[in-house]
Amino acid sequence: MKRIAPQPLTAAAFAPFGEVIEVDAGAQPLVINRGQTLRFHDLAAIDVEAGGGRPALSVFRGEPLDPCVLAIFERHPLGSQAFVPLDGNPYLVAVAPAGAFDPAAVRIFRATGRQGVNYRRNVWHHFLLPLTSGAHFLVIDREGPGVNLDEHELPLADRIAIDG
Amino acid sequence: MKRIAPQPLTAAAFAPFGEVIEVDAGAQPLVINRGQTLRFHDLAAIDVEAGGGRPALSVFRGEPLDPCVLAIFERHPLGSQAFVPLDGNPYLVAVAPAGAFDPAAVRIFRATGRQGVNYRRNVWHHFLLPLTSGAHFLVIDREGPGVNLDEHELPLADRIAIDG
Repeated sequence: MKRIAPQPLTAAAFAPFGEVIEVDAGAQPLVINRGQTLRFHDLAAIDVEAGGGRPALSVFRGEPLDPCVLAIFERHPLGSQAFVPLDGNPYLVAVAPAGAFDPAAVRIFRATGRQGVNYRRNVWHHFLLPLTSGAHFLVIDREGPGVNLDEHELPLADRIAIDG
Repeated sequence: MKRIAPQPLTAAAFAPFGEVIEVDAGAQPLVINRGQTLRFHDLAAIDVEAGGGRPALSVFRGEPLDPCVLAIFERHPLGSQAFVPLDGNPYLVAVAPAGAFDPAAVRIFRATGRQGVNYRRNVWHHFLLPLTSGAHFLVIDREGPGVNLDEHELPLADRIAIDG
């Protein structure tokens, strides 16, 4: 088993895997609604149309892993998947590059409760890793025909314990 | 000027206008991720493909109207528009049926901070009406060619002051 300490989530560090969904991190918002609203526009590449797909909006409620040992990664060959926290609490993000799963290339990030993530199609990622019980996330992913889930079980030696 | 007191937002009352995005209100969730996650699946009819459109994921930051007097409604002829609060605070929702704008048919709802809304294409609605300063909402709407905004300015006699 390996041990990895999470790094802070930044758009630059996450760029190989997708987008960080956050405000005040760069792009200027649009002023709309007669000045009452700022629109931080089009923050993620939603990619769900392959093979007759369409966007699905769902809410996930997750529990922390206890102990926090990662044993499986998944990827979605037909579409992107975005997660945005609804409770304002930090959570973990575990990813590895698309292609053959490479245990040496796993990256672990700690997201603030103000950051969402959008996994690009085929990017390996662990399922939802909240740090608080009953954590809610809005999810935008693909609904449609075809098999859109591929899983990779880590052999014992490659499993990852996440440090504090 | 008219005065209207908001009603609680429920899926049944909002059904003519679109969907309420919420958990624990009816449909059973799916158990996924080896039992770690509940998925409340596909809670809104995202309708953004007309005229070459695609889904856009944005974050809005809104300010309360002060005084809270509604003077303009808008509608999107090419797509749906979903709002999900990210701060957990209540907000207001003002809608009127699709078709010629009917001031007598305006409905005002008070949403909890755990409820989102998805406005169906062409449903008249007021722009974002938070009750707290700097309120953040995730928005899923349409990006693409064509004019997707139609506004209706209310004459003075039809303007609506929101009670309470």
